[in-house]
Amino acid sequence: MIKVGIIGSTGYAGNELVRLLMQHPEAEIVWYGSRSYVGQKYADVFRNCFEIVPDECLDDNIEELCEKADVVFTATPQGYCAGIVNENVLSKTKIIDLSADFRIKDVATYEKWYGIEHKSPQFIEEAVYGLCEINRDKIKNCRLLANPGCYTTTSILTCYPLAKKGLIDLSTLIVDAKSGTSGAGRSAKQDNLFCEVNENMKAYGVASHRHTPEIEEQLGYASGENVVISFTPHLVPMNRGILVTAYATLKPGVTEEQVRAAYEECYKDEYFVRVLNKGVCPETKWVEGSNFVDVNFKIDPRVNRVIMMGASDNLVKGAAGQAVQNMNIMFGLPENTGLKLVPMFP
Amino acid sequence: MIKVGIIGSTGYAGNELVRLLMQHPEAEIVWYGSRSYVGQKYADVFRNCFEIVPDECLDDNIEELCEKADVVFTATPQGYCAGIVNENVLSKTKIIDLSADFRIKDVATYEKWYGIEHKSPQFIEEAVYGLCEINRDKIKNCRLLANPGCYTTTSILTCYPLAKKGLIDLSTLIVDAKSGTSGAGRSAKQDNLFCEVNENMKAYGVASHRHTPEIEEQLGYASGENVVISFTPHLVPMNRGILVTAYATLKPGVTEEQVRAAYEECYKDEYFVRVLNKGVCPETKWVEGSNFVDVNFKIDPRVNRVIMMGASDNLVKGAAGQAVQNMNIMFGLPENTGLKLVPMFP
Amino acid sequence: MIKVGIIGSTGYAGNELVRLLMQHPEAEIVWYGSRSYVGQKYADVFRNCFEIVPDECLDDNIEELCEKADVVFTATPQGYCAGIVNENVLSKTKIIDLSADFRIKDVATYEKWYGIEHKSPQFIEEAVYGLCEINRDKIKNCRLLANPGCYTTTSILTCYPLAKKGLIDLSTLIVDAKSGTSGAGRSAKQDNLFCEVNENMKAYGVASHRHTPEIEEQLGYASGENVVISFTPHLVPMNRGILVTAYATLKPGVTEEQVRAAYEECYKDEYFVRVLNKGVCPETKWVEGSNFVDVNFKIDPRVNRVIMMGASDNLVKGAAGQAVQNMNIMFGLPENTGLKLVPMFP
Amino acid sequence: MIKVGIIGSTGYAGNELVRLLMQHPEAEIVWYGSRSYVGQKYADVFRNCFEIVPDECLDDNIEELCEKADVVFTATPQGYCAGIVNENVLSKTKIIDLSADFRIKDVATYEKWYGIEHKSPQFIEEAVYGLCEINRDKIKNCRLLANPGCYTTTSILTCYPLAKKGLIDLSTLIVDAKSGTSGAGRSAKQDNLFCEVNENMKAYGVASHRHTPEIEEQLGYASGENVVISFTPHLVPMNRGILVTAYATLKPGVTEEQVRAAYEECYKDEYFVRVLNKGVCPETKWVEGSNFVDVNFKIDPRVNRVIMMGASDNLVKGAAGQAVQNMNIMFGLPENTGLKLVPMFP
Repeated sequence: MIKVGIIGSTGYAGNELVRLLMQHPEAEIVWYGSRSYVGQKYADVFRNCFEIVPDECLDDNIEELCEKADVVFTATPQGYCAGIVNENVLSKTKIIDLSADFRIKDVATYEKWYGIEHKSPQFIEEAVYGLCEINRDKIKNCRLLANPGCYTTTSILTCYPLAKKGLIDLSTLIVDAKSGTSGAGRSAKQDNLFCEVNENMKAYGVASHRHTPEIEEQLGYASGENVVISFTPHLVPMNRGILVTAYATLKPGVTEEQVRAAYEECYKDEYFVRVLNKGVCPETKWVEGSNFVDVNFKIDPRVNRVIMMGASDNLVKGAAGQAVQNMNIMFGLPENTGLKLVPMFP
Repeated sequence: MIKVGIIGSTGYAGNELVRLLMQHPEAEIVWYGSRSYVGQKYADVFRNCFEIVPDECLDDNIEELCEKADVVFTATPQGYCAGIVNENVLSKTKIIDLSADFRIKDVATYEKWYGIEHKSPQFIEEAVYGLCEINRDKIKNCRLLANPGCYTTTSILTCYPLAKKGLIDLSTLIVDAKSGTSGAGRSAKQDNLFCEVNENMKAYGVASHRHTPEIEEQLGYASGENVVISFTPHLVPMNRGILVTAYATLKPGVTEEQVRAAYEECYKDEYFVRVLNKGVCPETKWVEGSNFVDVNFKIDPRVNRVIMMGASDNLVKGAAGQAVQNMNIMFGLPENTGLKLVPMFP
Repeated sequence: MIKVGIIGSTGYAGNELVRLLMQHPEAEIVWYGSRSYVGQKYADVFRNCFEIVPDECLDDNIEELCEKADVVFTATPQGYCAGIVNENVLSKTKIIDLSADFRIKDVATYEKWYGIEHKSPQFIEEAVYGLCEINRDKIKNCRLLANPGCYTTTSILTCYPLAKKGLIDLSTLIVDAKSGTSGAGRSAKQDNLFCEVNENMKAYGVASHRHTPEIEEQLGYASGENVVISFTPHLVPMNRGILVTAYATLKPGVTEEQVRAAYEECYKDEYFVRVLNKGVCPETKWVEGSNFVDVNFKIDPRVNRVIMMGASDNLVKGAAGQAVQNMNIMFGLPENTGLKLVPMFP
Repeated sequence: MIKVGIIGSTGYAGNELVRLLMQHPEAEIVWYGSRSYVGQKYADVFRNCFEIVPDECLDDNIEELCEKADVVFTATPQGYCAGIVNENVLSKTKIIDLSADFRIKDVATYEKWYGIEHKSPQFIEEAVYGLCEINRDKIKNCRLLANPGCYTTTSILTCYPLAKKGLIDLSTLIVDAKSGTSGAGRSAKQDNLFCEVNENMKAYGVASHRHTPEIEEQLGYASGENVVISFTPHLVPMNRGILVTAYATLKPGVTEEQVRAAYEECYKDEYFVRVLNKGVCPETKWVEGSNFVDVNFKIDPRVNRVIMMGASDNLVKGAAGQAVQNMNIMFGLPENTGLKLVPMFP
């Protein structure tokens, strides 16, 4: 049994980790960290776990935790993980960080977009970007894993095959993304009140959202080019789900067959990426509760553009599910162990 | 492996059976029956099952099906199961009927409330009412199981301990129930359109809803009295969830301690019924996607009434989950096999 | 033109007052009070008012305000209005208080249920309870009006005819009420986050909600009896709307005709109370955005109970709309001036 | 008083016309046409109108109707209006058609995108495209008005200033649009059931939606260029609201000041188009129930693109409200007569 510690277990992503790990045959949670609820029963904070999780919330003493856990998930705000990681910790446990601290290789880019100083730049080089379908080999042996977020996972997987195969002009790439509200977290903010979100839709973070450079970096690796994109997130009145609609101009002469072949070749062995049948648009509801990303595309010959589409559950493949998938890889388990969840409909 | 056939696999309850059984370690679906979609791929009808279920939908030939399946679930409209059951079928397979056909022992009562003639009254006596927590012993060896519906399961389990212990005046019992919209099914009806249901709430079937006699019959068995109640269902703008708020006058001298003891005694060994801590009201979201029923109560000394509350997921404990729980009992498996699902939040 | 001041203009009820008064032909808002947003443009706080309301938010200096306004609406927390009202203020302006400060005649009852000391008990006697359909005559000449809340308005109007005519046994009265989330206000609280409310339903304040004594007091006046009821509020995932389902035992021999006659007689001249046709259940969506209350009933002869139902928009008839209706009465205008709003569907 | 006839009064847009016209001081509805509900009370079909509209639904006898009405609104499926219009009708009444029949000047384009034969091509030339802010002068004296739809109105008004001023490269224009579900109409379709739409989001009609050529045609007039765009509509789980996010490359040297000046110049005298303050993104909720379109933009210097954003209520400015605005122009009334509605929040 893999002994798991969670720091930040009382956020939405933290609770999703608990949900998935309680159903995982090879993992056992030994530490429910939550600075805000120390000493309270976990099941009093997240009552879905009543009579399932008997534990109390603990603090986030990483020195003690790394002695007890084989792996620590940090589902914490930006800057937290960089503040606690050190050589001692990494020598004793593996860390899967759900924040952005180790996702971006260029520390200056990180500090510019996140507006905070990076506390442990010496570990950035070592950290592995945990987009499983792309970085599987590096993930296997890493000690410090940077788990990608919901917008980035869905955006990258939606565009990756065409970026990698060089079928699109990446300078024309526009990613219009729509997210359910759980991505905004469980903190009490007026903007996230039911009456402010329900029956409403808006863009936010236009031309300035922090996930932009991460998408650019990964598509840059895939294509071997310097990638700069437009990325616009939107808030949607639903709990879960990310929908990505991405637009790019096809390179001259590229055919629909080539585009489809690129998707199929990339993902033919992937359990969690489903390339839908021709003409079927991804919908967030068809992946809810699961670790799947559904992708597809449509070519518009009138404008010679391809419209790439992807849907995922932001708390699963966009956070906790991918983190567990990474854990499986890091511990040599079949990648879908504990993750063969059928999406819940409706 | 238990070989399972499903008739009516393309309704919401049918798809929930598929979701649960695909994750069940001891069951295998061998027949996806759907009169409306014969010859179509199941995953084209319910795209959550894309790349999970490769099968095509079949017709509902019960004679052929009973040769192939160890158990047949009928998630079909009223009257269907009564129309196909016969001695030959029951000699070859077990039937778990998710409709109301065999729930009510008095055929006249059935025919009055449902407005249709019962086609197989000769099997009513033999059929077992599949509220697992109450009828477990009879379920074990039955051939024909009448799986209770969502309103009834939640209403009965919410009131059962006090009815059984004789702590309330059953002549004062009022059940005010609220349901998510998936209970209304997947047929295209104007009343169930998004714009008609969303941002709206209403009572329906007031003083005439078909589930009334079923609740009365079961609480009658529990109490040894003739029970007649007020039951009012309401439609709520959410996909899943049943919330029951029930009111009854306490018998003279009954104390809070007695009431709590009744709940705890009844449910202390039940995996799927969670008696919440004092002061905590059940919420549908805390059981979503799981087979749990959360119950609790509050006493109002000003009026000497107890307010009993229960919450469940109408498609799981209120339909498919309970059906699988019954299958587990009927086939000698631990009752929660394949059903240890942590509720999904949010 | 009636000069209007609003204290608490940046809550949901305050903004609804602004919406209604901007469309009122005889009123003009001269003071947008908001302690939290002093000096900010009102339209930056409520952007529906962009290019409609050019004013900045002011503080709540009642001494200055009472010089400028013919009427002051206080859409403020409990205790606020009682803290600012005095003889000087009342000699210069009229006050319509949307809080509970002056709704309950017995100061001990108020202090017990609200848990705060009443700062101006000397004005309770004079204050008029502003349920227009019942207290119209007293409202005309009052200086201090206690505007009823959403639960109370809908509950009282739903049950009033049968209480007044003595057709029901009031000791059996149970009010099961369901409310949209705007009733919880615009303050940032975890419980009211989108992801906590959406796809969820729960009871709250069971056997202890503050609106209980107000309903009891008014139905007591109507019936001439001492009334004690069960009242259970529920939170529903929708922005607006109150639905009341009330249960009571009919007195011996009472017929459906008598019940219908009671409703029709009470409300035949009321513009804002619509007694629906036989068999039609009130739905919150059919009154949304309007000042209507839709009521109806169903008799269940099996249990000799009447199920009374009512629906309203909690921010209109349950708050701002009724406040404007009261203003119209107090200033001698036709009661529906500025309030002939057709409900918005969907 | 303008005598108004409505054909198709029992759809969502038809009912919105009724809502607005009942509150219009200079209009009177004389004919509630509805082929499906002839002889039924209008208020039984749309119960928001109970005790407001006493009329019964009539058929759609245009010959009789044109004798009685000064103006006829056709809120009907594609092809209907083209099938009933003729010289006699137009000599006796004005027609405001809410369908697409007369929006596109090139009949071949219409027939290609809509897949039906145009029954009255001889009136296309005369018909005026009723986007009030752009075609006001032509609207004044027209007999046959083609009222634009929700996607087109919002898309065009969002992009119009920059197209007209030549500040963007129109060959790069991409319109990503999100719509509430009322745009899909009130017909019973499985795709529009609550449980299919709620908690879900998807693109549809990708690269093939019928509103595309209409947007292209109007932006072509504005710019003097041949415009071909990408247009992708999405379905959002909310009743009302259109949000447009549009992307285009700025022409060389274009500054933020020029872009803002273009918006302000275009819309400085427009009551219904609100150019928001810098940094504020349009949200559908802030215009709900009103005839406003909120627009704004953000420049992304990293990619030299402008992101244009617009929000409206699809049933008001996107259908019935604009139709009434057109009526006001055609009958010489101030343009906002009956339309000075403050958006409803929440």
